[in-house]
Amino acid sequence: MPFERANIARLRGYVPGEQPASPETIKLNTNENPYPPPAAVAEALRTIEIAELRHYPSPLAEDFRVVAGLVHGVAPDCIVPVNGGDELLRLLLTTFVGPGETLAIMRPSYSLYPVLARVADCKLLEIPLNDDWTMPAGLPELLREQAAKMLMLVNPHAPTGRLLPVTELRELARDFAGILVLDEAYVDFVEPALGHDSIPLTREFANVVILRTLSKGYSLAGLRFGYGIGPTELIHPMASKTRDSYNTDHISQALAKAALESRDEASLTWQRVRRSRKWLRKELAILGIETMPSETNFLLAEIPAAIGASLLQQKLRECGILVRHFAEPRLENRLRITVGNETENNILIGKLREFLR
Amino acid sequence: MPFERANIARLRGYVPGEQPASPETIKLNTNENPYPPPAAVAEALRTIEIAELRHYPSPLAEDFRVVAGLVHGVAPDCIVPVNGGDELLRLLLTTFVGPGETLAIMRPSYSLYPVLARVADCKLLEIPLNDDWTMPAGLPELLREQAAKMLMLVNPHAPTGRLLPVTELRELARDFAGILVLDEAYVDFVEPALGHDSIPLTREFANVVILRTLSKGYSLAGLRFGYGIGPTELIHPMASKTRDSYNTDHISQALAKAALESRDEASLTWQRVRRSRKWLRKELAILGIETMPSETNFLLAEIPAAIGASLLQQKLRECGILVRHFAEPRLENRLRITVGNETENNILIGKLREFLR
Repeated sequence: MPFERANIARLRGYVPGEQPASPETIKLNTNENPYPPPAAVAEALRTIEIAELRHYPSPLAEDFRVVAGLVHGVAPDCIVPVNGGDELLRLLLTTFVGPGETLAIMRPSYSLYPVLARVADCKLLEIPLNDDWTMPAGLPELLREQAAKMLMLVNPHAPTGRLLPVTELRELARDFAGILVLDEAYVDFVEPALGHDSIPLTREFANVVILRTLSKGYSLAGLRFGYGIGPTELIHPMASKTRDSYNTDHISQALAKAALESRDEASLTWQRVRRSRKWLRKELAILGIETMPSETNFLLAEIPAAIGASLLQQKLRECGILVRHFAEPRLENRLRITVGNETENNILIGKLREFLR
Repeated sequence: MPFERANIARLRGYVPGEQPASPETIKLNTNENPYPPPAAVAEALRTIEIAELRHYPSPLAEDFRVVAGLVHGVAPDCIVPVNGGDELLRLLLTTFVGPGETLAIMRPSYSLYPVLARVADCKLLEIPLNDDWTMPAGLPELLREQAAKMLMLVNPHAPTGRLLPVTELRELARDFAGILVLDEAYVDFVEPALGHDSIPLTREFANVVILRTLSKGYSLAGLRFGYGIGPTELIHPMASKTRDSYNTDHISQALAKAALESRDEASLTWQRVRRSRKWLRKELAILGIETMPSETNFLLAEIPAAIGASLLQQKLRECGILVRHFAEPRLENRLRITVGNETENNILIGKLREFLR
């Protein structure tokens, strides 16, 4: 007798980007921040008392919630801390989208969404982006026809780096009867001059939840810490019912709080990444590799057919540089390249120049 | 329009034991270990390099898996690391028990099980223990009739402390067509002379999964780290499909590995707890408070009706001692008391002597 549920048996799990053993590898494949976390995080780690670990942690990371509330100008009750942003995505399905109900996502998008939909056994409505990666017309009508209960949007978008402005998001929130999830994993890298701020939508609408993570902007992918922001009606059931009782640990809570309190220091890394992003785009263009304007810490690079994206990825790999290739329609001829530090970006461009000569 | 799924809207969430603000409180309410974690855990914490947190952690905590495999004499593939034992319980339902299918548990038992069943929207079959807390006759037949897909047993049992021997578990595994989950959160406190070892069952049977946690035995409740042990056919779908992609963080992985490598040191705390458990039972008996023999780090104490369990809990609370009371049939007149350190146990007995005089 097979024990797995049918939806799980059919599923191929999510495949995370490669984590190389060698510290010499130049990792431009999983959108990690190339600079270290704020100094206060190291300080918070040093002051952890090991004996404190005897006790269960604060179930809801109350100290962190207060800080996050202050940072975003919302009440602590509008924050749910999670063990990495992925947990929030799962909780959103567990709490609001039942088996057989419909989750809508854009195609392409974060490749974890379809996996989570399968695990939750819900229907997946994949809506193709336009050829220029803009949103298709008639989206609200389509969502209504298909009775979508939730739309998950990664914004700025992965893997293109494109940002949907708040005006468009506001219209979408207004015209959609389900829950609009804004996965802002990369939002810290948006050009400040754009004045992008989607938090007010969580006050204006009853159906908007925002995901934030410390993985990218705060250089803490290894810590597994993120949080949801939204109206209490949406946050409360996740905070008090569907979340594992102690989903974040004592050490992570302390370090996450220290990180968020060091927003200004972290923002210096965002600035450096934006500067490098601009430089990298220009250098890639000189080599004949076109990229989309990006508001994230990565670029989606179109690889000339004469070389081939998959082959180029392989060649880079052989000299210790990892980038990400997605073997799916419209992405086959592209590579997603994380913006590294200045040295890494220089080495990358040097190698590409060699290969493309 | 209400957004919550019907099963979630109906649910009252799990209520964790109180975490007091004051460090002076004597916490005998959540079964934490009264002694600090092994020295190697502090050492592992000191050697964490903050810059390592930039990168995603090992998705499956491979180093920990290897150590756990060695400790238990199983292959690393038979281990799935989790963010606290509660995550494994959830994953077991997500992976193997679909909505409408049946999870069987004993009553009373760990109060989280029914909550997880509600979240997974599965049917709950609660089977009452006999009056003397032994297992009811005809259990396999009942499980068959009710088409139970899984039976979750906490062993040693909470909240009674009673241990089911491996011979009984073996018969149960053999006679049950579903998955037998042995939640061994408290197994480290079992008297070694009993020679209790259920790990061989995971090799003998295709349907046995064991849960272990570092929360109690290794004094690391604040770390959130546990693991499942079982045949690869049951472990693999959780490890590669239903688990959040990076469910345990870099720091926890390192500390958990150090803890498990220090089993001998940790076992000294188990010995002290057993000694105190014996002393506490004796002292309680002198005060007219009967307890069951316990193989855990807590005692279930029957409070004379003249005093009342709820009132006694309140009186202890007022002098800074927390114990656990469960407002449910058969437990109303009892208190679950965690075995504390020598000083804490002495203070508890002193206060009880006052109240019961």
